[in-house]
Amino acid sequence: MKPFVVIGGDAAGLSAASKLRRDDPDRDVIVFEKGRWVSYAHCGTPYFVKGDVDHLVDLQSLSPEEIDGRGVDLRREHEVIDVTTDDKTVTVEGSDGRFVQEYGDLLVATGARAFVPFDGAELDRVFTLHGLGSAARVRALLEEPEGFDVGSLGGGGYIDEEEVARYGNAEPPETVAVVGGGYVGVEMCEAFRAYDVDVDLFQRSGEVLPDFGDAVAQRVEGVMRENGVTVHTDTEVEALVDDGEGGVGGVETPEGTVGTDAALVGVGIRPNSEPVPDEVETGESGAIAVDRYGRTSAEDVYAAGDCAEAHHVVTGGTTWVPLGLTANRAGRAVGATVAGEPTPTGGVAGTATVKAFELECGRTGLVDEEEARAAGYEPVVETVDTRSRAGYYPGGSEITVRLVADRGTERLLGGATVGEDRSAIRIDTVATAVEAGMSVEEVERLDLGYAPPFSPVWDPVLVAAKVLNGRLQG
Amino acid sequence: MKPFVVIGGDAAGLSAASKLRRDDPDRDVIVFEKGRWVSYAHCGTPYFVKGDVDHLVDLQSLSPEEIDGRGVDLRREHEVIDVTTDDKTVTVEGSDGRFVQEYGDLLVATGARAFVPFDGAELDRVFTLHGLGSAARVRALLEEPEGFDVGSLGGGGYIDEEEVARYGNAEPPETVAVVGGGYVGVEMCEAFRAYDVDVDLFQRSGEVLPDFGDAVAQRVEGVMRENGVTVHTDTEVEALVDDGEGGVGGVETPEGTVGTDAALVGVGIRPNSEPVPDEVETGESGAIAVDRYGRTSAEDVYAAGDCAEAHHVVTGGTTWVPLGLTANRAGRAVGATVAGEPTPTGGVAGTATVKAFELECGRTGLVDEEEARAAGYEPVVETVDTRSRAGYYPGGSEITVRLVADRGTERLLGGATVGEDRSAIRIDTVATAVEAGMSVEEVERLDLGYAPPFSPVWDPVLVAAKVLNGRLQG
Repeated sequence: MKPFVVIGGDAAGLSAASKLRRDDPDRDVIVFEKGRWVSYAHCGTPYFVKGDVDHLVDLQSLSPEEIDGRGVDLRREHEVIDVTTDDKTVTVEGSDGRFVQEYGDLLVATGARAFVPFDGAELDRVFTLHGLGSAARVRALLEEPEGFDVGSLGGGGYIDEEEVARYGNAEPPETVAVVGGGYVGVEMCEAFRAYDVDVDLFQRSGEVLPDFGDAVAQRVEGVMRENGVTVHTDTEVEALVDDGEGGVGGVETPEGTVGTDAALVGVGIRPNSEPVPDEVETGESGAIAVDRYGRTSAEDVYAAGDCAEAHHVVTGGTTWVPLGLTANRAGRAVGATVAGEPTPTGGVAGTATVKAFELECGRTGLVDEEEARAAGYEPVVETVDTRSRAGYYPGGSEITVRLVADRGTERLLGGATVGEDRSAIRIDTVATAVEAGMSVEEVERLDLGYAPPFSPVWDPVLVAAKVLNGRLQG
Repeated sequence: MKPFVVIGGDAAGLSAASKLRRDDPDRDVIVFEKGRWVSYAHCGTPYFVKGDVDHLVDLQSLSPEEIDGRGVDLRREHEVIDVTTDDKTVTVEGSDGRFVQEYGDLLVATGARAFVPFDGAELDRVFTLHGLGSAARVRALLEEPEGFDVGSLGGGGYIDEEEVARYGNAEPPETVAVVGGGYVGVEMCEAFRAYDVDVDLFQRSGEVLPDFGDAVAQRVEGVMRENGVTVHTDTEVEALVDDGEGGVGGVETPEGTVGTDAALVGVGIRPNSEPVPDEVETGESGAIAVDRYGRTSAEDVYAAGDCAEAHHVVTGGTTWVPLGLTANRAGRAVGATVAGEPTPTGGVAGTATVKAFELECGRTGLVDEEEARAAGYEPVVETVDTRSRAGYYPGGSEITVRLVADRGTERLLGGATVGEDRSAIRIDTVATAVEAGMSVEEVERLDLGYAPPFSPVWDPVLVAAKVLNGRLQG
């Protein structure tokens, strides 16, 4: 039997390869990864830059040796430059030259890439945080040059140490511009402030973390300002400006140019759908269209992870949610399917959490009213501020819970949480209720845990459901 | 219309009274409370003793003045000594003598009381922690007598200051015996250790926190020992022994007598079903039997809170779960029903959380295999140890998740969690899935939140569901 070929050695690709080897040890698996790194935790890079994580290799989930140990034929620095579905082959370019490889089944797990939609991306000290090399460069730049040792970053031999050392030996920036107020932008503000660098955050829309809704945005913007970040909302960056020496010196906006010594651009990512041929259809999002088993429109070609669409558990439609759990789960399911046990990749609710300084934020399902309306619902929304613990118990925090329901069916569609003290993780209760298709009244009646150190008698989610149910019944 | 009469001024009684006044402002409500305190947080008393909560009045949810402001006629130090359902009256004894009060509807919300099933309860320095007076006495005893000021306890005029001062002026104990390893016992061990008192914990069965299952018990016993508590499991206390001066001096067990300077007994509570007449039926648990609206077997007589049974969302049968949320919710529902809007009290899953030193514990639904079998299920159990956060992110903890499913239906029946770092609150995800009637496979596919500071890519609940589902399918 021809081998299972995987393009991309990250979460989805390696989950699929490992699962197939476990379920069908006789089948060969080849993973082609164009970079040096495999299987690393993207989501951890801001914490490596901040210094909460000491070494870059700590972000590696599996070492190449562990992957070998699973019987997976991993070829790093091998780029697939063409796929031909007629004869079921891929063309690969690597250190050992160009060659053609046949496949029995093919998984496209090429991930996504950061993009910069304005001029100046090529300037020095302009970074996107997609990949471990850029994380190493940003952290090297932030560290004091005296005594800088590139080895201390723990690159594990995978980074270009000479290039990283060049940043490490330069003077740290006094000011940094963060362009984009999504996950990466918010997390990176915290990372830069840990080095006492002045930070300007530029967000095109009216609020940061737009997927989380305005209640979360207001509190996050507040905590960012308290922590010394200058937040510019409704501010579209038009270009990054040269400092005269090939480095970034400023951020051009309609209101004028703001000077800066470095820039971190996190305005979004796009699915990598090359080298996929035309007969593999992409969806509206630009990501590869898949069915509930991760199958593309081409025979024996699957897609999973950040390059592929997914199915939304609330709307039933397709969506693109490039997050770690989705990738791991879809990859694992494809591995099982290829091994002969058809396994759905599972729907997504768009559940996500993020830390913004001391605030913990969560979101799930449909949070935005417009999005809910577009999906055919009549959204009813309530936002409730309450306490995270019994009032008399020390260490509590104000927690804000936003819940969204459909007026007709009274079904819970989604929600968001924000606060200190375990606020993010409470979104999992909301996510579970959303996936179960519960009505708001059913949520209000949930028997949730209570102890003074962890929650008030009426859990914040229950209080929000009670208020929302009052609106629905009123 | 004759008034709505409530017996008992705590969570259930005052929730009902307040709700009725809000929904039907023309109806009179009289609440008879035999004690001085109303509406206080039982669950907070260990933290008052420990000193995390400064003042006793901080534990009061509503002051008598606030209750008055809601239009509730609250009569403290008024005990209902008889109920006659024929002519719908109650007989009351108070500072203003004995009198008969007619009712239109009656709510029995008399709560529960601690019991001591062995000799020696009458000895000095033997406490049960049911009520604020005993909490004040225990804390007074623990504080150093030099400079002791009974006013600093913030009793709000409701405690017997002379009696409390007697404990405050005595030498603190060097050793304390805690009898009973349930919630109160576990929490009180932590409180006593905060004063550096030697603590012996006696538990009749083989493990502490038996409702949480053995995985939780093992870790809790470990953390108790690490914190200097001597844990005696499988040890039945036969009596508390006189020190020769009317105070407790030792704990008698089959293995011998262990000396002690004071004792805290928390072996359980029993529902207060007096002064209810015979025609109001009680269930197997000894608590008052109620239907899904809190109605007893007597016309226009309701029961709610710790004195009443409840309906279990998993088994569909009756259960007795004397916890705060159940009481608040049932009381509120009875208030709405009496006001003319029949409202179910809501089922219970037995969800509970407790803090044991740095460990956070949760449980929901059916955790015990025997209990699951007795309810007609064929339980399949998995206990999985995993991490609370991404492995590379600092501050994570080992979290243990136990899940129980039914082999035939593959439905999730219950679970327990234990660990540091947000381990207890994760039980709410399990509780929601249990109440939704989800299969283990549906739980495994839940889209839960992920960010390195809060959880690994595969949330501990998902990992446990994956392992359990493997067992079910294997």
